Amino acid sequence: MTSIDATQWRDLDPGARMLMGPGPSDVPARVLQAMSSPTVGHLDPYFLSVMEETQTLLRQMFQTENRLTIPVSGTGSAGMEACFVNLVEPGDTVLVAVNGVFGTRMCDIVNRLGAHLVRVDAPWGRAIDAADVEQAARSHDVKLVAVVHAETSTGVLQPLDELAAIARDAGALFLVDTVTSLGGVEVAVDRWGVDAVYSGTQKCLSCPPGLAPVSLGDRALAALDARRSPVVSWYLDMSMVREYWGAERKYHHTAPVNMIYALREALRLVAEEGLRARFARHLLNHRALVAGVEAMGLAMLVPESERLVTLNTIRIPEGAADVATRRALLSRYGIEIGGGLGSLAGAVWRVGIMGASSTERHVLTFLAALETVLREQGVAIAGNGLEAADAVYAAARVD
Amino acid sequence: MTSIDATQWRDLDPGARMLMGPGPSDVPARVLQAMSSPTVGHLDPYFLSVMEETQTLLRQMFQTENRLTIPVSGTGSAGMEACFVNLVEPGDTVLVAVNGVFGTRMCDIVNRLGAHLVRVDAPWGRAIDAADVEQAARSHDVKLVAVVHAETSTGVLQPLDELAAIARDAGALFLVDTVTSLGGVEVAVDRWGVDAVYSGTQKCLSCPPGLAPVSLGDRALAALDARRSPVVSWYLDMSMVREYWGAERKYHHTAPVNMIYALREALRLVAEEGLRARFARHLLNHRALVAGVEAMGLAMLVPESERLVTLNTIRIPEGAADVATRRALLSRYGIEIGGGLGSLAGAVWRVGIMGASSTERHVLTFLAALETVLREQGVAIAGNGLEAADAVYAAARVD
Repeated sequence: MTSIDATQWRDLDPGARMLMGPGPSDVPARVLQAMSSPTVGHLDPYFLSVMEETQTLLRQMFQTENRLTIPVSGTGSAGMEACFVNLVEPGDTVLVAVNGVFGTRMCDIVNRLGAHLVRVDAPWGRAIDAADVEQAARSHDVKLVAVVHAETSTGVLQPLDELAAIARDAGALFLVDTVTSLGGVEVAVDRWGVDAVYSGTQKCLSCPPGLAPVSLGDRALAALDARRSPVVSWYLDMSMVREYWGAERKYHHTAPVNMIYALREALRLVAEEGLRARFARHLLNHRALVAGVEAMGLAMLVPESERLVTLNTIRIPEGAADVATRRALLSRYGIEIGGGLGSLAGAVWRVGIMGASSTERHVLTFLAALETVLREQGVAIAGNGLEAADAVYAAARVD
Repeated sequence: MTSIDATQWRDLDPGARMLMGPGPSDVPARVLQAMSSPTVGHLDPYFLSVMEETQTLLRQMFQTENRLTIPVSGTGSAGMEACFVNLVEPGDTVLVAVNGVFGTRMCDIVNRLGAHLVRVDAPWGRAIDAADVEQAARSHDVKLVAVVHAETSTGVLQPLDELAAIARDAGALFLVDTVTSLGGVEVAVDRWGVDAVYSGTQKCLSCPPGLAPVSLGDRALAALDARRSPVVSWYLDMSMVREYWGAERKYHHTAPVNMIYALREALRLVAEEGLRARFARHLLNHRALVAGVEAMGLAMLVPESERLVTLNTIRIPEGAADVATRRALLSRYGIEIGGGLGSLAGAVWRVGIMGASSTERHVLTFLAALETVLREQGVAIAGNGLEAADAVYAAARVD
C-alpha cells in the first residue's frame, strides 16, 4: 500500500486578495461562514427548507415566476451545458450570436450535440446587431436563439428585448447567458421574454464558484417534454433534476449541500441590499473606474453605450507589459485582474467590479496600484486617475 | 422590479446530526474551516499549488501513479458521467455488471450515449459472478467493462481483480465506481489494473458533496485520444479539463475553489490517519454494528463474505415501520439513516459508517436509539445489541 507522508502539507493559508478579475469576486465573511455550517443530508427536512428558500430567492434575482429555477450542481459552464443539452436534439437548428469566448463556447456545445448551427458574428468588443440576427432567423427554421447577455471576455452588455422579440417571431426559444450580469445589472427574465437562462455564483453574487443558477420557463419545459430523444446527459437531465427540486423530492444525485448554504446566504445579502441599490452601486463604481482609467490616459475597449458595468476591458497601453503588470498587481497588492482571452490576449486587461468587489475601496486601490506599476515601467500617465474617480463619487454623494 | 423582502430569511442553523445514511457523512470541523478559507482566483499561484497537492493526495488515495487524477467539478454522479462520456462513443459495445441502483444508472448513461449495452445482472444484495461477466465478454466485442466496487444501494463489496483480468483478456477498458469505497476500504487502482475510476467526496472521505475524484490511466487516455467523435459533454471533456489540471494551466471552467480547499483538508486528514489504520477502523466499526444488530435479532441483507463495511443494509424487521422509524431516529436523536432504493424500498435500512461517521460513538448511539424506537413499536428485541457490540470493541482493545 502506498505510504502517505502526512507532514508535508501545511494548513491552508491563501493570504489576502482583492479579486477584480473576471471572477471569482471577493466572498463576504457571512457567505463563507454559512458555507461552513454543518453538512446535513440532501433529503433532510431542514435542507429541503433551505432548497425552497434558495429557489424563492433565485426567482426574485431572475425576476421570474418560473417554477423550475434552481442551482445546477456545477459551475457556470455546467449551466450553459444544462440548458443546451435539455433543449437541443440532434438535427435541431440553433442560432447562436457570437461576439466573444462564451458565444464561441455555445457553438462548440451545439456542434457536439449534433445540431445544425447558424452562427451570427459581431466584432469582439461590440454588441450584436439585432438586424443580423433577424435576417438569419428568417432564413432558417430555428428552434432556439442563444446569446450572451454579458460577455466576460470583452466587457460588452447585449440588449435583449429586441432579440427576444425576434426569437419569438421566429417561433424559437430564447436562451440567455447571464453569468456576469446576474446580481450586478438587471436581468428581467419574465418581462423580457427569456425562455431559458443560466448564470454562475462567483461573479456578481459573490458566492464561491461551484453552482449554476438556471431557470426554465413554460415554453422551454414544453420543448423538454416534447423531446424525441433522451437528454444525452444523465447528470444534467432536467426531467429528473426537477423531481428532486420539486414536490416529489425524488433522489437524483446528492446535492452540493454546503455550496447551497453559501448561495442562500449570498442571495440573502442581495435581498438585504435590494436589487435597485445593488445595480446603482455597480454602475457608480464602473463610472468611477472608467473616469480614473481615462484620466490616466488609458482607453476602454468597448464604446460607452455598449459597456458592461461589471466587467471592464481596458486596452493595454503602449509600453506596458501585460503579464508583468498583472503579476505585480497580484504579488505586491494582492489585486487579481484578468488578461485578455482569445483574440484579445495581450491586448486588454479585464477588471471585474462585481458583487463584494464593487466598492470605492477596490476602485481606488486598483487605480493607485495600476498607476504605480505603469509608472515604473516608463508608461506615461496623462492625468490624475484618483482625482477623476473621486469626482464621480463626490458627485454621487451630493445627489 | 420584483421587490425582495429581506427579513423573512433567518440565519442558517441546521442543528446537530449524526450522518449515518448512504452519504453525506459527518464532516470534520477542520474540513469545514478549510472550506471557508478566503476564495482566491482559479489561476492564482497559491491555488495552483493547492491543486497540485490535492492531486498528489488523491493519487495516494487511489494508489495510482496516473497523472490524470483530479476532482471533477460535480458530485459523484458527474464522475460516473465523466468517465462514460470520455471513453464511450456511439456504436461502442459496453458491458455493465449490474447488482443495484448504480449499475442500473451506468446502463442508463450508456444508452444515452448511443452505445450498445451488454448487461450482466446479479441479484440485488449479492456480488456479481465473474463467470457471467467472462461469458458475456467472450460473446461480444467489448470496448469497456464497467462495475460498481461498493454498491451504495445494497451494501455489497465487489471483488475486482478477477473482473480486471477478464476485461484485459477481452481487450477492454476496466471502469470502476468507488463512490462508497474510496477512503473506507482498499482501492488499489494500479495493482488491480483499473483503467478508469471515479468516486465522491461525501462518503468515506467525509468532505461535503460537490466533487468527484476521477483517475484515468494510460489505456483510458489512449482511448480518449483515439476518439472518432467529439466528447458530447463540453463541461466534462477530459481532453480539455486535463490542460487546466496539467502543466498548461489552460482555462477551461472556473474550478470550485473552496470545495477543493475542503477536499485537500479531508485528504490531509486521511494521510494523518494512514490508509491501513483507516481501513481497520472502518472494519472494526462495521463488525461491532453487525454484532449489535444481529444480537437484537435483526438480519443483514448481504451474506457475510460479500458485505461492504462502509454501507450496511439491515432487513427491516417484522412489525417495524420503515418511514416512522427513520423519522424518529432523525427527529429525536439527530441520526440520519437511509431507506431502501428501487426494489429494496421498504425492505432494508441503509446504515453508513463512513469516514468521520465511523466511530464507536456512532455505532453505540445508533444501536441504542434503534432499540428504543423498535421497542416502542412493539418489535421484539432478541438480545442486548450494545453488549454484543461492546464485546467486539473490547476484543479489539485487548489485541
